[in-house]
Order: sequence, then structure tokens, then C-alpha cells
Amino acid sequence: MINLFWADECGLPANDRGLAYGDGLFETIRMEGVRGALLARHLERMSRDAGRLGIAVSRNELKEVCAKAAERFSGRYQDGWVLKLLLTRGAGGRGYRSEVGMRPNLLVSGAVLPPPVSPLGVAVDLSRVALTVHPLFVGIKSLNRLEQVMASREINDSLFEVVMSNHEGHLVEGTRTNLILKIPDGWITPPKSSLAVAGVMRQWVLDSLHERGESIVERPLTMADVLDPGCRGLFLLNSVQGVVPVREFAGHHLPVDSGLATICNLLETLE
Amino acid sequence: MINLFWADECGLPANDRGLAYGDGLFETIRMEGVRGALLARHLERMSRDAGRLGIAVSRNELKEVCAKAAERFSGRYQDGWVLKLLLTRGAGGRGYRSEVGMRPNLLVSGAVLPPPVSPLGVAVDLSRVALTVHPLFVGIKSLNRLEQVMASREINDSLFEVVMSNHEGHLVEGTRTNLILKIPDGWITPPKSSLAVAGVMRQWVLDSLHERGESIVERPLTMADVLDPGCRGLFLLNSVQGVVPVREFAGHHLPVDSGLATICNLLETLE
Repeated sequence: MINLFWADECGLPANDRGLAYGDGLFETIRMEGVRGALLARHLERMSRDAGRLGIAVSRNELKEVCAKAAERFSGRYQDGWVLKLLLTRGAGGRGYRSEVGMRPNLLVSGAVLPPPVSPLGVAVDLSRVALTVHPLFVGIKSLNRLEQVMASREINDSLFEVVMSNHEGHLVEGTRTNLILKIPDGWITPPKSSLAVAGVMRQWVLDSLHERGESIVERPLTMADVLDPGCRGLFLLNSVQGVVPVREFAGHHLPVDSGLATICNLLETLE
Repeated sequence: MINLFWADECGLPANDRGLAYGDGLFETIRMEGVRGALLARHLERMSRDAGRLGIAVSRNELKEVCAKAAERFSGRYQDGWVLKLLLTRGAGGRGYRSEVGMRPNLLVSGAVLPPPVSPLGVAVDLSRVALTVHPLFVGIKSLNRLEQVMASREINDSLFEVVMSNHEGHLVEGTRTNLILKIPDGWITPPKSSLAVAGVMRQWVLDSLHERGESIVERPLTMADVLDPGCRGLFLLNSVQGVVPVREFAGHHLPVDSGLATICNLLETLE
């Protein structure tokens, strides 16, 4: 059982472990009225990754909360909005040590959609903040996001995103987006094992391409891949903004292809 | 200017960035009545490290808050207590991006002291959770502490602490303590550049030993150093519990020496 908090009513208790240590995780879901895009995948990821951290929450509990949230918030927004679920291990414990049988806290909020992205593509740059991924937390959208916060300080108004590299110099992901590159005979995307956040949108795009019989290679991505004349387009994937083509990367112009956004239209996944 | 919140009255706003991303840092200070141990060093560290994250707070502001907190909380505890300052970048922003000129939030709480530690020493074990330290955040007691949380789940009632190693296999620090090893001709402690949290107690102990003319080497510490017959004692350093001698490390008995705890008595630093 979880404790449910509505962010428009109150925050979490002062001794919540999410605040104290980032001891929790979150999801942001693109909503249209009462329906959510890739909703089942979001709930699946949150309950699975909570389990990896030892936070007990069931997919069904989360599903019920989403239904209540849709009722509560949908009338406040015209058309689309964003549902955020923030789950923590709960309040208290002795320092870093949690207590057995702690009851998780779930903070639920609604927000306006970010401004729409031009189909002509966006400009991105390389981040100077290196991305480190702890083996225990690979792919988990946890509340420990200080690297992304610091990297996002490099985003100015002419940039949509910055792309972070790991210590091997591989391009891994943006602060809030995963990457996929189109090449003549298929697609390249950084391996799941290298990701700080393994996006729900990313996995859905991979599954969709796979179903269409496209060839996808999961391997480290380099700047040389992006600047290769064979590159047919670089895309940012995000479960609120969908497929975002990149037209300019660190000052280099890239080909823009609207095909992927057409095939993988987030709004066709509303549940 | 900061917004001040008393944890016994309310928590932080639901959209605080400390909760959302661990975008902040904290200090825990050993108090005795209205006086704080190593108080100036705690305030110096918090204001300096906040500056590294781009959070604007002055040492003087913090000092004034501590005086108010001492007045507010000291009467509630017999003898010693713990003052916690939790500083965040503030509330809001667009996703990971913060806004310019954000006003930081400071959450202040008082707590009872943890149980006293036996002068005969404590038992510790090696953690299976590796410690990763991002170059940008070396030494900062930030709110991104999921590694320490997961490591502390290995602490059972017969253990005081677990010691975390980095990917090179060096012993770096405990979940809430720094390490110093006594050898025949001086002391060894892991280098500051390798630390997740550069403890205030650690620095004071180093300064005190230095003043006494003792030889201190900052270099990577290994299990071989600890098990070496020349080892005269391993100590955990923590600014609430002071100097804690280790009598047993991963099943190995170590010599216990009460000298360091006598030289570096935390309660002699009350300000």
C-alpha cells in the first residue's frame, strides 16, 4: 500500500526520503484528456524499477492512481497535459538506512505541455558534463538527477537539448531524451546497459521498428557516426514530446527526416 | 535570500527541486544546547559547495538560521542533539532546467542523537555497492545519495557501517563516514579527490594531526593496508559521532586505539 499525495494540495512530509536522499523514482506521462500515451509501459517500468530499489508498489496500484489523476486533472487542461508520478521509499528511517516495511509515498501532479517542437528539427549541442551510470541504477529514472540538472544549465534558448557522453567518449543520451541514429541499412542506438534512463519512448520506438522488420544495432554511438556522410538523421526520443529530429548538432547540419515521427506517433498510443 | 522552512511545521513545496532531482545539499551538525560542533566548518562547506552547484547562499545567512534553530530546538532535547540543514535550489523551473535568480529553500530540522558508540570499537563490513564519484560533485554532500542508501541496506544490527570501494577496488569511505588508518609512522587517508563526501570531521582531524606534527599521507587505501601487520588502527570519522575506532573489519580483528578519539574530541569544538 502507498500513501497518495496530490501535489496541488500539499507536498511530501518534511522527512521524506525522496527529498533527503533522492530515494525514489518518477515517470512523466503524455496525457490527452483522460488517456495516457504508452501508459502501460510507464506503469510497468515504474513498478519494475521500484522493485530494483526495494520499494514495494504494484502496477495495479499505480494504474488506479492514474485513473483518479486523469479524472482530477484532465478538466484543467485544454487538450494535452503531462501527468507526473513521483514515488519515494517513504518517510523516516535512521539516516540512509530505511526501515523494514516502509510505506512508499506517491506524489501526483499535472502540468501543461512544453511548447511544441518544430517538425523541421531542433538544435542540440554536446554537454561538457560527463554522464556516469552506476551499475545498480542502469536505466532507472531515479530522483538522483544532479548530472542532468548541471548539464541542462548549458541549454540556452537556441538549444533544445544537450547530449551527454560517458567517460569513454560515447554519446549516451540527452538530459531528458534518448538517441537513435538512422543509417542507410537501419538504425543505431546506444545499448540499454549504458543508459542512465532507459526511456519508455525509446523502447516503444525500438519495438515498432523491429515489428516493421527494420535492422537495429545497439552499440556505442560516437560523434563520427553522427557526422558520417551515411547518417540519414539523428532523433531524440522523449515520452512527452515523442520523436524529435535533430537538424543541427554541435554546429553541424544534419539531414532531417520526418519518417520516424510519422511511424512512431506518440498520440497513437493513447490508452 | 533564502526561503526558510521549519521541518516541525511543514515540508518543502511539492515542486521543490530537491525532491524532484536531488538538486541540493545538506549538513548534519552535532549540537550541545545552543552550541554546534565544528559549526563554522559546516557553514563554510555548505556555502562553498552550494556555490559549486550554482545555488546562491551566504555563510552569514546560514549562520543566522543556525542561531534561530538553536533557540527553537535546544530546549526539546536533553544534552546533545542533531541539527540538519537541507538546502535546495528552490521550487519550479522547466524540467531539469532551473530559472535564473531562483530563491533557494532551506529546510531545518532537529533530531535526537544516534545511540552512543562503544569506545571498544565497532564492526564494519565491505559493501557490495560500488562507489562512483562524478568529477563535478567530488566531496559534495548533495541530495543524490542513492548509492549510500542501497549500501546501507547491507548494514545489519551487528554492523555499525559498511565501507564502499570504487571501481579500482580502493576503500573510499563508509556510507556516512570517512576513513583514516594509523600506521607506525603516521596516518593514511583516501585522497579528497576520490571522495563522494569530504567530511567536515575528516578535515578537522587532518588539520589537528597536522598541527601536532604528525605525518599524513593522502593516497588510495586498500584492504592490504588495513590487514597489514603494521596497521595500528582504522577509524571512522563522522561529524555527529566523532572518531569511531573499528575493532572488526570484514571478519578481521583490528587493533583498537583510543588515542585519536582523545586528541580529536568533537565536543571540544563546540562554538
